[in-house]
Amino acid sequence: MLKKYLITPGPTAVPEQVLLDMARPMIHHRTPEFEAIFKEARQGLKKVFKTEQEPLILASSGTGAMEAAVVNTLNREDKVLVINGGKFGERWIKICQTYGIEVSTIDLEWGSSVKAEDVKAFLDKNPDTKAVFVQGSETSTTVYHPVKELAAVTKNLPETLLVVDGITSAGVHDTRFDEWGIDILITGSQKAFMLPPGLAFITLSQKAWNMAETSRLPKFYFNLKTELKNQLKNTTAWTAGVSLIIGLKTVIDMMEKEGIDNVFKRHEINAEATRQAVKALGLKLLAKDLPSNAATGCFLPENIDGKAFVKYLRDKCGISLAGGQDHLAGKILRISHLGYHDAFDTITAISAIEMGLLKFGANIELGKGVAAAQKVLMGEMPEI
Amino acid sequence: MLKKYLITPGPTAVPEQVLLDMARPMIHHRTPEFEAIFKEARQGLKKVFKTEQEPLILASSGTGAMEAAVVNTLNREDKVLVINGGKFGERWIKICQTYGIEVSTIDLEWGSSVKAEDVKAFLDKNPDTKAVFVQGSETSTTVYHPVKELAAVTKNLPETLLVVDGITSAGVHDTRFDEWGIDILITGSQKAFMLPPGLAFITLSQKAWNMAETSRLPKFYFNLKTELKNQLKNTTAWTAGVSLIIGLKTVIDMMEKEGIDNVFKRHEINAEATRQAVKALGLKLLAKDLPSNAATGCFLPENIDGKAFVKYLRDKCGISLAGGQDHLAGKILRISHLGYHDAFDTITAISAIEMGLLKFGANIELGKGVAAAQKVLMGEMPEI
Repeated sequence: MLKKYLITPGPTAVPEQVLLDMARPMIHHRTPEFEAIFKEARQGLKKVFKTEQEPLILASSGTGAMEAAVVNTLNREDKVLVINGGKFGERWIKICQTYGIEVSTIDLEWGSSVKAEDVKAFLDKNPDTKAVFVQGSETSTTVYHPVKELAAVTKNLPETLLVVDGITSAGVHDTRFDEWGIDILITGSQKAFMLPPGLAFITLSQKAWNMAETSRLPKFYFNLKTELKNQLKNTTAWTAGVSLIIGLKTVIDMMEKEGIDNVFKRHEINAEATRQAVKALGLKLLAKDLPSNAATGCFLPENIDGKAFVKYLRDKCGISLAGGQDHLAGKILRISHLGYHDAFDTITAISAIEMGLLKFGANIELGKGVAAAQKVLMGEMPEI
Repeated sequence: MLKKYLITPGPTAVPEQVLLDMARPMIHHRTPEFEAIFKEARQGLKKVFKTEQEPLILASSGTGAMEAAVVNTLNREDKVLVINGGKFGERWIKICQTYGIEVSTIDLEWGSSVKAEDVKAFLDKNPDTKAVFVQGSETSTTVYHPVKELAAVTKNLPETLLVVDGITSAGVHDTRFDEWGIDILITGSQKAFMLPPGLAFITLSQKAWNMAETSRLPKFYFNLKTELKNQLKNTTAWTAGVSLIIGLKTVIDMMEKEGIDNVFKRHEINAEATRQAVKALGLKLLAKDLPSNAATGCFLPENIDGKAFVKYLRDKCGISLAGGQDHLAGKILRISHLGYHDAFDTITAISAIEMGLLKFGANIELGKGVAAAQKVLMGEMPEI
């Protein structure tokens, strides 16, 4: 018997109540019943993102919303800056280049966070930069980029947008869209929002909507002006992802019941417990500066084949964690804290890693990582 | 957010696939479709109980099958022996007395297992004893009684039945109905069989069926001869518990896929890991002789209010364990290993107990119990 524990940085576990609500009989999307659900879901997103702007719900993965951010606000030959410190930073570059946009980058070693002062220095030298693209949390490196400080740099520049891929940071780290002055925030359904993949959320500031007026890049499915017109009437331009949106309404209810700020706090505590646990086991953290609370990356001992280790935990113990990508493949482990994840998921992950390490020949003491995690969880979790 | 972990000795967690199969549209019980499922479920029960006899499926809790065992085989003023070492031993006494049966008892301190030689001595002195009633596993005390040895005592007595309440031992401890010579074996759906409560299973030996011929106690719903006649034709005398039986078919498939003997082994390993963990934490085991692999009982430190402790773990940590009953109320903790329970459920339970103990002022070392459990799980679980 193999119980399955999905502790990867997306997709993440879906709560039973959400699964049940999504399993209810299909309803039509052009009905008052659906429109009422859709309206409530969108109102809830505003609270999570702390904005009075209009979050738009798209039937796509997060990558679709990344492309929407580009094609709705920019033009060919526009100049942009991409913070390039991991797999998803690279994705911004590829999307921009597809549309003939001129990309400059700040290249970071995988594991490092960008410094807001470096972005400011670049923009001072290149005032014609139309947008700065960044990940709130770079999932491939488990690093957080300082969104608030970056927004402080772009906030008063009338023609430079801050575009944040918040796919693993929105709903995880407190992200104050209006107060901080973010221009575009993107996220997906399968991370902090505890849903199956298939929905993306994108919110634009007034500055971003102004730039949309002059953007001439081609777009049809991802035309956000068309979406806005429809979503203000509680419907969608194209067929809505009905079941996922029904599930989103349940997720929003769960988040509001827990308290939005408590959701952020829970992610922080489970992340901190995991960081202390892996350090107690003598493993080096991947994040050098600001660690993400979405997932914790750590290096495995050099003599352990990380791919075999991840496969062993998944196939023999039922514990799905993520390995590394590109040059970190086989070298690191990434442990998720996203979404429907509690203190005992953290302990399950750590205890499995301990047993796996011993099985793979590492010289570790069983229970030591668990104890380090327990200390954080007990000290910080209000309920434990 | 409070995830819920049901680690009580029944009801137990129901696997997702079983829940999904039970949620399929209702079918009628007098149909070839249902009869095919019913037949397969009963064939599966034979493999679990290791018998060629006919396990009967009743729509009742286990207590109904306990009563059925009495009313189908005995008469008023018959003499019986009850092994009385806990809450469920007491239930045999009450049922027998309800029907005017003369009950003798072997009274055991809660936590002790009966000795087969004591039963033999009693039967030697009282050869007119019609039945010996025992729990395979006494859930209230987490004690195993030596079923095999007891059956060896009664096997060659032509007019003395061994009636085993296997509600938390069948499907947990290897129980060889035919080979050992058990006469009646009872179990329920909500323990090792990983189902919601509502079904009971009862199997009679030829000796028990012979005694049924002369039993004149009143019975209607629980008339097992009527049931047998129907169930041999793959139907039930009264309306069948359709959804639960559909779920039972899935459970049987899961058990066969895992291997029946591997199911027993898994219970044994999780129980042993838990025993080693609570000992490492300095807690005294309740079971003095033979511990049950269904659940592990241990005494809490004397200055801890066990009721408050169980309530705290349930309401604040989401971990449902059982406390004590009657004179053990508030003094002990019972940790289940039943049914859909894996190594990480054991670790979750132990880590929660550790944090709870520290919270309640006990002087324990975090991670020490977890490490003791991990050692057993790693050494014994084929996959870890």
